[in-house]
Amino acid sequence: MKRVSGGFFPPIALERGRELPIYRQLYDWFQRAIASGQLKPGQRVPSTRALAEELNVSRIPVLNAFEQLHAEGYLQTFVGAGTCVARSIPQETIAPLPTKLTGKAAGRIARPVRRAAKRKISDANLSAKIVGPQPWLNLKGAFRMHLPALEQFPVEVWSRLVARHARKLSKQTMAYGEPMGYAPFREAIAQYIGAVRAVRCEASQIMVVAGSQQGLQRSARVLVNPGDAVWTEEPGYFGARRAFASVGAELIPVPVDEEGLMVEEGIRRCPKARAVYITPSHQYPLGTTMSATRRMQLLNWASRSGAWIIEDDYDSEYRFGVRPIGSLQGLDSDARVIYVGTFSKVMFPALRMGYLVVPADLTPAFSAARDADDIFSPTLYQAALTEFISEGHFARHVRRMKILYMGRCRALVEEIRRELGDTLEIVSAEAGMHVTGLLPAGVNDAAVSQRAMEDGISAMPLSFCYLKRPARNGLVLGYGTSDGAQIRDGVRKLKASLEAVMGRRTDRARR
Amino acid sequence: MKRVSGGFFPPIALERGRELPIYRQLYDWFQRAIASGQLKPGQRVPSTRALAEELNVSRIPVLNAFEQLHAEGYLQTFVGAGTCVARSIPQETIAPLPTKLTGKAAGRIARPVRRAAKRKISDANLSAKIVGPQPWLNLKGAFRMHLPALEQFPVEVWSRLVARHARKLSKQTMAYGEPMGYAPFREAIAQYIGAVRAVRCEASQIMVVAGSQQGLQRSARVLVNPGDAVWTEEPGYFGARRAFASVGAELIPVPVDEEGLMVEEGIRRCPKARAVYITPSHQYPLGTTMSATRRMQLLNWASRSGAWIIEDDYDSEYRFGVRPIGSLQGLDSDARVIYVGTFSKVMFPALRMGYLVVPADLTPAFSAARDADDIFSPTLYQAALTEFISEGHFARHVRRMKILYMGRCRALVEEIRRELGDTLEIVSAEAGMHVTGLLPAGVNDAAVSQRAMEDGISAMPLSFCYLKRPARNGLVLGYGTSDGAQIRDGVRKLKASLEAVMGRRTDRARR
Repeated sequence: MKRVSGGFFPPIALERGRELPIYRQLYDWFQRAIASGQLKPGQRVPSTRALAEELNVSRIPVLNAFEQLHAEGYLQTFVGAGTCVARSIPQETIAPLPTKLTGKAAGRIARPVRRAAKRKISDANLSAKIVGPQPWLNLKGAFRMHLPALEQFPVEVWSRLVARHARKLSKQTMAYGEPMGYAPFREAIAQYIGAVRAVRCEASQIMVVAGSQQGLQRSARVLVNPGDAVWTEEPGYFGARRAFASVGAELIPVPVDEEGLMVEEGIRRCPKARAVYITPSHQYPLGTTMSATRRMQLLNWASRSGAWIIEDDYDSEYRFGVRPIGSLQGLDSDARVIYVGTFSKVMFPALRMGYLVVPADLTPAFSAARDADDIFSPTLYQAALTEFISEGHFARHVRRMKILYMGRCRALVEEIRRELGDTLEIVSAEAGMHVTGLLPAGVNDAAVSQRAMEDGISAMPLSFCYLKRPARNGLVLGYGTSDGAQIRDGVRKLKASLEAVMGRRTDRARR
Repeated sequence: MKRVSGGFFPPIALERGRELPIYRQLYDWFQRAIASGQLKPGQRVPSTRALAEELNVSRIPVLNAFEQLHAEGYLQTFVGAGTCVARSIPQETIAPLPTKLTGKAAGRIARPVRRAAKRKISDANLSAKIVGPQPWLNLKGAFRMHLPALEQFPVEVWSRLVARHARKLSKQTMAYGEPMGYAPFREAIAQYIGAVRAVRCEASQIMVVAGSQQGLQRSARVLVNPGDAVWTEEPGYFGARRAFASVGAELIPVPVDEEGLMVEEGIRRCPKARAVYITPSHQYPLGTTMSATRRMQLLNWASRSGAWIIEDDYDSEYRFGVRPIGSLQGLDSDARVIYVGTFSKVMFPALRMGYLVVPADLTPAFSAARDADDIFSPTLYQAALTEFISEGHFARHVRRMKILYMGRCRALVEEIRRELGDTLEIVSAEAGMHVTGLLPAGVNDAAVSQRAMEDGISAMPLSFCYLKRPARNGLVLGYGTSDGAQIRDGVRKLKASLEAVMGRRTDRARR
């Protein structure tokens, strides 16, 4: 039988008093020595007795290590030839393991020079890059966006419900759940949005999702092919662009005016778009409400052209002044609208709970897509939230927050009017958790935001909500997390930032 | 000023004593009458006083309804002309709303005949259909797959931790979290899989996901383009096929033998595959372990061809007999392996918790993809699970379950040997939560499963784990949820089903 001469057998470094047992250190050493080609296929290895003596350890760990190395096919034993490295191990060796991770022994392994092939990832990732990083989202301090008044959330009530449901976990609530969601939860949602948002649907059309972003992403994946055109509001919500870009959609920015999306302009730019993303109740970021005329123009176009309408109703619970504006979905008679709702603003983001209202004929497609993705949402939260709603805590919390935000909204508007009256022109302030103000032409909003950031103030530049240039300059100010004092202090700092930037500007102008 | 003659003003049906207030009923009626074209743009509407008298209601609700209809742009008031339907409303009307949802009034609206355009959805949905529905997954009773022994889970301990974390919700744990996951949780996972699975990684490479399915789906989306070829084990796991098919990948089935995936055959069939999906520790469904030789062949090929390896380590915590087999990831020196782990089998599925170990250079891409999808996983569960692990409950539970499953595995194997010895040939039974047995050639496993289903027994047909024909006939039996009595009873019923089907077969043979 052919023998492969092993030459000098490489030294084995054991680290005593290490938590890793001796047998495991031996196993690892052999595995890596073989993987890295330091030990060649067919090369003879010492007997367990010899090795135990050489290493001055009991024979037991050596036997254990060899047992496993045999079991896994690293070693073979031939009668007469003793134990060798398995002949079937490929001769070609992969690059050695990084020293850092493999301890002393590996350090002695010679590194082959071959370079690995280029590391390709999918194009979807690249297309997602259309929407760059969003530094403004991580801003702290007054006026930060997208966060509700977390300190106002009834944690006691909520934790009591969560605890109760956690204690009574049953096989049924621990096993796999429905892709569309927990049935009682879907019922509760259908009733809630039917009453409050004039959404017309059966519970069977509700799909529970992990926040509105997953709802947007899922809608994009189910409805849009790579290369399909999708209208997005200009200015608009970056999260939606990200979702549609990530499936390779071509984003068509359609301008927004005080009546909302300019439907005729959209038709002029791209009549055959496959879908449109829209925030009709409270346009993100301008805060305007879509007029009845535009709503019907949009529904007519979608019905004619077979396009889908993704309606994002992200913060419509909070409307001040006139009565709530009904959803676009409620006006839709051709089942063209996919309605996206979220609990991130009315409960809290880390809950990861939202919902879709899907046209009845599309529910199989949405359900299948969910099944291939994350299958379903955690059951306990769905059950706890169902009770939170049915016991009336939800409605109560929404009412309280509505009053709170209305007060904060008015306070912010007042401060802005008094302090920045002539520099920051408020677009609309009748709903939601943020106010948008326009800056005089030529004032660089990013510069103002930058300056405000240095003072610990978050002021999202309006220009960053535009996909294409030229963008209008303005500031988007959230008041969800800012009380009266923070609002007053924040506006003062904002004023300083504005004067600093505009001062520089006029200086330049003088030169 | 031009007047549009309204002709006879359509009757308004109010339903008294309905929970919907009068003003809302009026608002809805007008909105829908205008949307459906029953009221024409420019058409005059009665004064609020006249309407109140006609309907015999107080004038307040009428004023409220009109106020909102004005606010939303359905009505306009012209000096001298009184109140009319807004002229800007498009003449073309969309189809009327379904009667059911709109009450009496809508019933009288004439339906235009125009049909809506064809309803197109994305091709990804169609490609996902490659993997059809899985009736076997919903099977109840003994031997059902994919479920752990839920009744053994330490609910008290777990609910105590969940309750504690729910009570101490802070702004930080309620706000938006990191796409990669909750830092302490990632640390805990990295330590755990480093020690138990010989996975070599930093916590920074861990991405928390909602179960292994989301891990597979995310890997597919980040790494694979539509049309790219992906090796999948034959027979193999339908969930992985679903994930890769849903991004439009071309699935290349590569046969599995007792040493695991036949790498050379894969290279013969498709050397340029972009990725391979593999279950090296405990092949799904055959239960075999990939040999050292095959592991290195696979790593060599991936390194040479620049392919990605998605290693699914779904139930490797449970290994009976020999010591745990290390992960493939731990052998990989070219950062080609994406390691997928899940808590669905060791905790419970409704938790929706799993993790990926991502090569360091790919973490930005995975993080960005997560950001565009569902952003991050619920924080509370991550925090509670971190403590469950650090307090040692997790390791204790795994140990207990390992002993339990080992017992159930042996009991099942024994019963099969005694009752079905010559008909069902067990492939491997040294790990996990299921055992696979082969049937004699020509015995239709789907027929046996069907028959067993009627007896309330779940026996997944092996043939359904094949992408291409011919498939081997066999039965995949889960023992996660079945105790000794259920196992004995189940095997007896299985025997009856087998005899029934094979009886029919021999009958046919005789004719």
